[in-house]
Amino acid sequence: MAESEQKSIKELITPIKEDLLSGAAELALRAIVVFQTVMADKQNEDPEKLRSLLQETARELVAAQPAMAPIFHLANSVLVNIADAKTSTEILDTTQKTLDDYEKQLCDSAAKIADQVYELIEPGGLVFAYSFSSTVVSALLNARSRGKYFRVACTEARPSMEGRKLASRLASGGIEVIHTFDNAMGLVLPNCCAAFMGCDCIARPGVVNKVGSWMLAVSCREVKVPLYALSGTEKFVGDERLFEFEKHERPGTEVWDSAPQGIRLLNNQFDLVPFDLLTGLVTECGILTEKDIEPYMTKYKVHEDLKLDPVLTVSD
Amino acid sequence: MAESEQKSIKELITPIKEDLLSGAAELALRAIVVFQTVMADKQNEDPEKLRSLLQETARELVAAQPAMAPIFHLANSVLVNIADAKTSTEILDTTQKTLDDYEKQLCDSAAKIADQVYELIEPGGLVFAYSFSSTVVSALLNARSRGKYFRVACTEARPSMEGRKLASRLASGGIEVIHTFDNAMGLVLPNCCAAFMGCDCIARPGVVNKVGSWMLAVSCREVKVPLYALSGTEKFVGDERLFEFEKHERPGTEVWDSAPQGIRLLNNQFDLVPFDLLTGLVTECGILTEKDIEPYMTKYKVHEDLKLDPVLTVSD
Repeated sequence: MAESEQKSIKELITPIKEDLLSGAAELALRAIVVFQTVMADKQNEDPEKLRSLLQETARELVAAQPAMAPIFHLANSVLVNIADAKTSTEILDTTQKTLDDYEKQLCDSAAKIADQVYELIEPGGLVFAYSFSSTVVSALLNARSRGKYFRVACTEARPSMEGRKLASRLASGGIEVIHTFDNAMGLVLPNCCAAFMGCDCIARPGVVNKVGSWMLAVSCREVKVPLYALSGTEKFVGDERLFEFEKHERPGTEVWDSAPQGIRLLNNQFDLVPFDLLTGLVTECGILTEKDIEPYMTKYKVHEDLKLDPVLTVSD
Repeated sequence: MAESEQKSIKELITPIKEDLLSGAAELALRAIVVFQTVMADKQNEDPEKLRSLLQETARELVAAQPAMAPIFHLANSVLVNIADAKTSTEILDTTQKTLDDYEKQLCDSAAKIADQVYELIEPGGLVFAYSFSSTVVSALLNARSRGKYFRVACTEARPSMEGRKLASRLASGGIEVIHTFDNAMGLVLPNCCAAFMGCDCIARPGVVNKVGSWMLAVSCREVKVPLYALSGTEKFVGDERLFEFEKHERPGTEVWDSAPQGIRLLNNQFDLVPFDLLTGLVTECGILTEKDIEPYMTKYKVHEDLKLDPVLTVSD
């Protein structure tokens, strides 16, 4: 592939890589647009070159947001589905159908999740919501638009403050919002009837989400507030992929742009909430707990291009 | 008292009221300086006018930082001790002695606490420290200067970021510091051998400190890291005074200076850590747990000027 093509794919994906404000489902929808942009006007492209372009796009998307399972599954489905396609038309049509199916699945899941969340909100109650998740936002706005009155408490979600994006989105949808610092969760949680968070990926050890989710979960258990992660089952990944989120370390200057010498800055974006700290995982297939997840952990085929490097392990 | 004198006392105290970066012991030392400034060149002042000036200073200091027990005790001791003083010289001498004794007590306590903290730090270990406390800083620098090698992890302590002041002070004293966001506590705590915090006041329900301390405490228990509050016994107050910290609400614009309509901003500075979440309270009298505190809760005389308004309670 020409260097300029590689560069232009990277450029298309940079906004997704740099986006610290959007949830996994929202970024997957934007990844769909990236695939569509790469495919535009490629009807007469050589099929192997086209395949190679899509492979490069898939690899770059996954590398841009290694914690976000929906991006991985989208990219993986595209590559697996076009593996046997021969002509450029076949490749383009198969990719387009994969993108369409995936978008429909994301939207259907969000609607089914919203219906279940409606039942979990106490009328007149205060609910807590953490970080930004399009699934959480659409569920809360759906409940409000169906006439349920409730208030939402949320916190900043340092460093990228996507809690402000959440607060703004909910307020503009007519929901009364109470907003404070992440370290003040303990002052508002005792008044909440439920807490909701999105999630980026799920496997047997638990749910990966924005850093701070673990503290939210520990705090919720302490004050006996049920905590639900809202997530389509497209967030399930193999256990080996779960810890990819640890790759996502951001520059220390985003923590503190003028730290004196001798101070090491840690800027990790995600943490892991074990299942035993979650009340339930609200999916399009119902509210799941740890005992229910095994069927969703069935192996999926991973395209050669997206396989992880084998981990060196000490023999048993 | 002349209006201009009241105004100038208020002006002297404003920097203490606005100081969100210093711990309670440090602010008490600055309150000593305020009293000294008010007393300067007052040898020939009318005794009742002088007493009235000191009463006004005491009331304003307590109102400026209602959560900070050492300021209350300092102000209260001054007023109680001068109650029977007749002449201006007597008032000035008694006040000066009260200030000197109090300063000595604060410094002696800090030194005795530091000696105990030395024993609690594992050589080569990582310890967590939260917010800013001069007692914590002096204990950690003392341990380092006595040749113990260890690293310190700390977080920002939003919104005033006094965690940065802590990090800078420790780093300049030769301690290696790891610094991150408050919501990322869960990523560093599991690697810590102990956690330390200061405190602003103590009574039977627990320890009041910078908001976020409760989450730190809940998180420490979850990952089995011992958590110690470092505090001289001058932080003990009657239970009725403990919740004065709830008065200390700051402007919402410090949370978010451009929040859209419909978002209520909460900016509370303190929270309460119940004793059962603390491993121990390191004082100049040893490491105390809940069962040890009763003797320190003995009644102290509160000067009429500093009594709290009676709370309206439902009869039993």
